Amino acid sequence: MRLSELCRALGLEEPAVDFELRKLAPLDEAGPEDLSFLDNPKYAHLLTATKAGAVLVAPAFAEKVPAGSAALVSDEPYLKLAEASRFFAPDPMSEEGADPVIGEGSRVAEGAYLGRDVVIGKNVTVMPGAYVGDRVRIGDETLIYPNVTIYHDCEIGKRCILHAGAVIGSDGFGFAHTRDGRHVKLYQLGRVVLEDEVEIGANTAIDRGTLSKTVIKEGTKVDNLVQIGHNCEVGPRAIVVSQVGLSGSTKLGRNVVMGGQSATSGHLEIGDFTQIAARGGVTKSLPGGKVFAGFPIMEHKAWLKLNAMLSRMLKSDRKEKQ
Amino acid sequence: MRLSELCRALGLEEPAVDFELRKLAPLDEAGPEDLSFLDNPKYAHLLTATKAGAVLVAPAFAEKVPAGSAALVSDEPYLKLAEASRFFAPDPMSEEGADPVIGEGSRVAEGAYLGRDVVIGKNVTVMPGAYVGDRVRIGDETLIYPNVTIYHDCEIGKRCILHAGAVIGSDGFGFAHTRDGRHVKLYQLGRVVLEDEVEIGANTAIDRGTLSKTVIKEGTKVDNLVQIGHNCEVGPRAIVVSQVGLSGSTKLGRNVVMGGQSATSGHLEIGDFTQIAARGGVTKSLPGGKVFAGFPIMEHKAWLKLNAMLSRMLKSDRKEKQ
Amino acid sequence: MRLSELCRALGLEEPAVDFELRKLAPLDEAGPEDLSFLDNPKYAHLLTATKAGAVLVAPAFAEKVPAGSAALVSDEPYLKLAEASRFFAPDPMSEEGADPVIGEGSRVAEGAYLGRDVVIGKNVTVMPGAYVGDRVRIGDETLIYPNVTIYHDCEIGKRCILHAGAVIGSDGFGFAHTRDGRHVKLYQLGRVVLEDEVEIGANTAIDRGTLSKTVIKEGTKVDNLVQIGHNCEVGPRAIVVSQVGLSGSTKLGRNVVMGGQSATSGHLEIGDFTQIAARGGVTKSLPGGKVFAGFPIMEHKAWLKLNAMLSRMLKSDRKEKQ
Repeated sequence: MRLSELCRALGLEEPAVDFELRKLAPLDEAGPEDLSFLDNPKYAHLLTATKAGAVLVAPAFAEKVPAGSAALVSDEPYLKLAEASRFFAPDPMSEEGADPVIGEGSRVAEGAYLGRDVVIGKNVTVMPGAYVGDRVRIGDETLIYPNVTIYHDCEIGKRCILHAGAVIGSDGFGFAHTRDGRHVKLYQLGRVVLEDEVEIGANTAIDRGTLSKTVIKEGTKVDNLVQIGHNCEVGPRAIVVSQVGLSGSTKLGRNVVMGGQSATSGHLEIGDFTQIAARGGVTKSLPGGKVFAGFPIMEHKAWLKLNAMLSRMLKSDRKEKQ
Repeated sequence: MRLSELCRALGLEEPAVDFELRKLAPLDEAGPEDLSFLDNPKYAHLLTATKAGAVLVAPAFAEKVPAGSAALVSDEPYLKLAEASRFFAPDPMSEEGADPVIGEGSRVAEGAYLGRDVVIGKNVTVMPGAYVGDRVRIGDETLIYPNVTIYHDCEIGKRCILHAGAVIGSDGFGFAHTRDGRHVKLYQLGRVVLEDEVEIGANTAIDRGTLSKTVIKEGTKVDNLVQIGHNCEVGPRAIVVSQVGLSGSTKLGRNVVMGGQSATSGHLEIGDFTQIAARGGVTKSLPGGKVFAGFPIMEHKAWLKLNAMLSRMLKSDRKEKQ
Repeated sequence: MRLSELCRALGLEEPAVDFELRKLAPLDEAGPEDLSFLDNPKYAHLLTATKAGAVLVAPAFAEKVPAGSAALVSDEPYLKLAEASRFFAPDPMSEEGADPVIGEGSRVAEGAYLGRDVVIGKNVTVMPGAYVGDRVRIGDETLIYPNVTIYHDCEIGKRCILHAGAVIGSDGFGFAHTRDGRHVKLYQLGRVVLEDEVEIGANTAIDRGTLSKTVIKEGTKVDNLVQIGHNCEVGPRAIVVSQVGLSGSTKLGRNVVMGGQSATSGHLEIGDFTQIAARGGVTKSLPGGKVFAGFPIMEHKAWLKLNAMLSRMLKSDRKEKQ
């Protein structure tokens, strides 16, 4: 799609230049064929240095768009980004591209589905009802159980195990909102990368990155029914127990342990070797090497003391009333 | 099934009249060919006005069944309703009915399954491994990702997106209990309606209504791994974040936001534009336009104060002990 | 695999005896052809009485291995067990074995998959996209909805209902850890048994036992999106509401009710007729017949008082500050 077409589709003033747009990208990753955007003023310092071919910005920032970039000015740049995003979303079920390439010793069950341009390594097993989307790559010796869905463009490492019903690469939950309360989908154009020796539990869902990637690093083990939001980075060698929910853009460091049903707010970081007890609700970034619990999150020792204090208070409260 | 047959099957006294029963229905919706029931005395006022052909009631209410209705009297009317319900459940995999009707521009992948009497609009995509049950209708431009299951009789609007592994129309969790603790299934005879522009996340489950419908209204967006119980009404334009659980018969108003892992008790109502913070446990109906948090639920400001108070108390408790 | 081969593969000293190993088994279940292990000193009393052909033990326990058993000595017996376990895991998609045996009146949809040596009873319905693994047995009149996955060797009773997306028999979450923080999979070699009249909700996951079985007993009803860990025993006639998480080796007694989003720590027991309120976090074993709530768990009455006390304190705290 050409820049001029996009501007017409979004009702934006057409800039003087025109070119074929390649993709959406963040300010610091965009190149001269890409469209970028500034929504959060916190990132304004990235604007002046961007190499993006065009940038969606609010009027207040129009002057700061560098000379080589076309400024696309809107009162609602994030909404316009969402409207633009659908033009960059690939067909989820392409009819073009090559037949799959399947390595030696691999078995793809009848009743499994492989998309176009799929590349599968050696000694891989893909069981019935599994769906492997267009351009997916799967490393050697990986085992895909039945009814797993791997969306287009995702990458699965070597010696991974994906249990039944796992979904890799579903859309992150991203919407812009109109003034009258309508939610406009920000098409999720990134992907998911599972590095080597990752295990994913039954019916777990891992969302693709918005523009970039969600990464589950080497040797990380994820249990059943876990939610991992878009743009997360998990591991290496993290342990994520059943029913955990990681909000978007969470970073878990090396060997982090998330107990069952624990969760994180978005855009925070948990340091290496940290452990979150079951049900812990992580409301802020945490340093490495400690054990935390509770909601809001606190050190595990504090949580134990809090519970002991409440228990004592409850007993004396009862006595007072007697 | 004729009324007399049903009475014999359930071990109930046969009434004087007899006719072919059409369906189960609540007192205020039942017609002269329908069977209804009174279990909760709270709804006794509906009994005297019902148009139901027959009504299951406890002995105390037998006299109040109007003249045009046959009273089916039992000490355990709800249990009898459950026993009756299975006679009204359709075959989940019918062999009768017409081939699907598929609109122009629609693509149904090889390896997707369409039931009998299915109607699919224009420019719909149904991906491999998706199951579309008997009599399901899908509106124009809707996208069904792989391994989605849509149970019989459900209705999907236009421009909806259903992510992989989503289940639409599974049975609500409804049982009557015998005196010796056995659970007798109340067959779930309703359906699910997703209105236009609804998005449903990966591995989310939405149960069908018991006798009527579960409705997700226009423009509502539901994230991954969410549970929506039978008879819920959600939206329009609600936002339901990952791992939320809505108990049966919950009503969420316009633009309600449910944060991650939040939940509701059953049979309550949340007013328009209300926001429930992550992990909030909604234990009562809530007015519109406010922000709530915590479990039991309270205003978000109160929850912040509660946590600050506890934190102070914990500090002074530690000092006292030193 | 012969014992000598296994020792070479694991880098262990070869014992004087040698024989073909049949399976891994706990100390008190292992026979003369089986390999067992002692990891937790708590179970040392079982060591002296074991009939296992060979036992993985730490040096301190080598002397206590009985005369008929070969002691395989390692500083890290649990890690060696994990390394050994993969040699005992069957091919998840066997190419050997007999065609399925399907009882009278049963319907297996085109697009459902049956493995080798499957035995299906009478009047069973297996819907499209369902996967029934090798050696699975399904009892009469059971209904398997679309996209259900039943892993190899599991056993499903009579008159069961498995809703769409349910996963039966996925691997329990078990790993040994190396000194440098790598997680070595303990292959899960047990199975899942669902007894008669069990209902399993949509997208629920039930993990297979580690060496033995996970059992859902007669008449138990499990809602959607529930996690049941390895080696659990649930029921008979338990009620497990949506989004509950049962950690490994949990025992729920007869007619136990687990409210929505409630959970248990592992290796604990909940007595008959106990009820856990929604969100309850069960942190210890509980006696039968009572109602519990909160996290940490307490009697429901105490939880109500705790909340009332906190609510009063919050009010007076506000007044003090005014």
